[in-house]
Amino acid sequence: MQRPLPVAELIVPRWIVPIEPAGVVLEGHAIAIDAAGAIAAIGPVADLRAACAAGVETALPDHVVTPGLFNLHTHAAMTLLRGLGDDLPLMQWLSTKIWPVEKALLSEEFVAAGTRLACLEMLRGGTTCFADMYFFPAAAGRAAREIGMRAHLGITVIDLPTAGGGDADDYLDRGLALFDRMRNEPLLSFSFAPHAPYTISDATFDRISMLMGQTGLPMLIHLHETEEEIRREIEQHGLRPAMRLERLGLVGPALTAVHAVHLDDREVALFAERGVSIAHCPASNLKLASGIARIARYLDAGINLGIGTDGSASNNRLDMPAEMRLAALLAKGASGRADVFGAHQVLHAATLAGAKACGLDDRIGSIVVGKQADLVAFDLGALDYQPIFDVASHLIFVAGREAVTDVWVAGKPVVQKRQFVSDGARAAEGKGASAIALWQNRTRSQLATQ
Amino acid sequence: MQRPLPVAELIVPRWIVPIEPAGVVLEGHAIAIDAAGAIAAIGPVADLRAACAAGVETALPDHVVTPGLFNLHTHAAMTLLRGLGDDLPLMQWLSTKIWPVEKALLSEEFVAAGTRLACLEMLRGGTTCFADMYFFPAAAGRAAREIGMRAHLGITVIDLPTAGGGDADDYLDRGLALFDRMRNEPLLSFSFAPHAPYTISDATFDRISMLMGQTGLPMLIHLHETEEEIRREIEQHGLRPAMRLERLGLVGPALTAVHAVHLDDREVALFAERGVSIAHCPASNLKLASGIARIARYLDAGINLGIGTDGSASNNRLDMPAEMRLAALLAKGASGRADVFGAHQVLHAATLAGAKACGLDDRIGSIVVGKQADLVAFDLGALDYQPIFDVASHLIFVAGREAVTDVWVAGKPVVQKRQFVSDGARAAEGKGASAIALWQNRTRSQLATQ
Repeated sequence: MQRPLPVAELIVPRWIVPIEPAGVVLEGHAIAIDAAGAIAAIGPVADLRAACAAGVETALPDHVVTPGLFNLHTHAAMTLLRGLGDDLPLMQWLSTKIWPVEKALLSEEFVAAGTRLACLEMLRGGTTCFADMYFFPAAAGRAAREIGMRAHLGITVIDLPTAGGGDADDYLDRGLALFDRMRNEPLLSFSFAPHAPYTISDATFDRISMLMGQTGLPMLIHLHETEEEIRREIEQHGLRPAMRLERLGLVGPALTAVHAVHLDDREVALFAERGVSIAHCPASNLKLASGIARIARYLDAGINLGIGTDGSASNNRLDMPAEMRLAALLAKGASGRADVFGAHQVLHAATLAGAKACGLDDRIGSIVVGKQADLVAFDLGALDYQPIFDVASHLIFVAGREAVTDVWVAGKPVVQKRQFVSDGARAAEGKGASAIALWQNRTRSQLATQ
Repeated sequence: MQRPLPVAELIVPRWIVPIEPAGVVLEGHAIAIDAAGAIAAIGPVADLRAACAAGVETALPDHVVTPGLFNLHTHAAMTLLRGLGDDLPLMQWLSTKIWPVEKALLSEEFVAAGTRLACLEMLRGGTTCFADMYFFPAAAGRAAREIGMRAHLGITVIDLPTAGGGDADDYLDRGLALFDRMRNEPLLSFSFAPHAPYTISDATFDRISMLMGQTGLPMLIHLHETEEEIRREIEQHGLRPAMRLERLGLVGPALTAVHAVHLDDREVALFAERGVSIAHCPASNLKLASGIARIARYLDAGINLGIGTDGSASNNRLDMPAEMRLAALLAKGASGRADVFGAHQVLHAATLAGAKACGLDDRIGSIVVGKQADLVAFDLGALDYQPIFDVASHLIFVAGREAVTDVWVAGKPVVQKRQFVSDGARAAEGKGASAIALWQNRTRSQLATQ
């Protein structure tokens, strides 16, 4: 007989959707987490009980456990600007609301406070990792680490001076220093995040390309979000933005195109062939009237498609379950094909595909032995959720983030029975109301002086 | 000094969105409900406290109170088929899942059980009235009355035999008998609900038209839900369905076109001119890949637009807050205009416009003295909802149904602090789990025998 596997926690839910293998719903299975926070085993409950010397057994009798959701695009700190300037046309929204407030308030302190609130909201709603793109990534990284959330931090670059940097080289230098300092933090990872082709020169792209080669980091960039952006780039560079990136040698598996609302067939084929990922942000694209991405087409081509919420100023919830539902509905409605983007494929998009885009799929994104135990439990027991014929499609069309009861990051419980249990999260929650009041007042004052 | 107004309950929320007058958010105001369940007064808190001899004062310090939401299209009993056959193409979904199960299980008992569950889900999510279109409307009406929910019952007609009726005359005779029996029930109202032009003959429409004249009841009908439906009608009748209704004299203010996904410009102009209402069901239209209605165009034309969830088999939540959000997002994204379908207009659609479509706008749909006190309170205090810059757009883009804490129907509290408090609702909730188990087993058995 084998020696029992030393296990920190045995999770016994009603169902498990492991994502790998694809399309599977397990019943009567358990997940064992080891002391280092990795998945030690997944198998039939009786087998795991026999094999494991478990510290804690967590029974989740009405629950389905999935990998933690991966929010592939957000500006976490913008949570402080949630709902600012709703229902305005894009340029008026940016120029009268978002930019003036950012210009006045952007600081390490702003980013720390906003990111903390964003992490709490995301964790409580089942998101365990987010790809962030904002200024002062060091402050965002500290906030995530403090709370115990996994974060993929964008080294934001823009050819414009802001409080976060003077010019492209300055942003890059600060970002590289941050990367050197925090590269071994277990919950943090990094990418280059040049803002968008229309704010980045060829010279800056060349430097980023060189640095990507040196560091192995991927790149996330806003790309083809609006028709207007494409038109302007053609005027300025004679090329559509994606084709400009292609000319610069940047179209490859390290690239994630954020939004990608408007891709022509040639671009779809190119992205599929080169292994480019897309961060699909359906709520933001609708709310800002950017358009409706041809998701069915992208999926048919085999593009790796992740899902993002975008920031709270253009969504206004950092709510991945809602984003999954919207992504599924919209793909069907826009393509005229009700069988497009099925439930398992949507769940894959919101977990493993996001991890893959960021080069983290060896570590997270599915419930597989050896990966980190980033997990979320949805309670499907509420009367409003009955009956249940298909657990996977219930996660997409029925269960909202209100169903999330338990969340683990790297094996550590962060949320239990809908309450924060980690010290970091509880501390951030305790400070939340006063942080909100402070920044809301500052924002209002700033808008009043305009 | 005036004698104090005798008042059953004084509600003191942080904000009120009364819908009438339009575009208003009141702060520091209260609502007084009289013993008959009507709104006795709305005004500044101090004034109302002075004027009213209130039985109970309900403080809602972080809440916004709106009129109860009006779900303008559902098949409540289909809650028992929630999520059955997700991700299937429309005809396969109907022919392999929905129709066989309906054929085997449809009965008064099925409708009573399913409607009860639907009422509980809707009430808890802030919906106080629903326009129902299903078989055995008498059973649906009894369920709603028992629970204390307002229901607008469709007298369903279809030129096909089902367990609910033998032919069109039979459905109509049963429906008229029901109307005679229940017309004075305070929470119930009625409409004719012929299923769709492709299942209704001209002769049946003529009889309905005559009965509408005699009874004053409106008519709700599935119309222009899919391109296929329009094509088939042109083949059969030489006319698009809306134009066939026009030829039959049915296009007028008593008509609500359910879905109306595909209207050409001439039909939009006709509907606007004649005062036709539309029941917009965005989630269902996307999920079944019916298409994306040109909502911006309909609103520009001035059509009275309400919002419906459709049934749980094609949504899969009877969740009006989610439907409001989706309707707002989709109108913007599909039109390319971020300022289309602003928050106050969406709230109007989900309340007063629905009531107007059903001829109930003199009784419900806005917080106006003399109307019934059908109210809902959303708690905006959660940290995940902060900051708040605009209460109305927060209701659309931030608050989900999980924010609903208190619901009144005709002045009677049905939900308080997220718990059912009326005897009828509590009794239905108590029976809910066993009802679900029973019908889920019957459905599974039925599908297994196919």
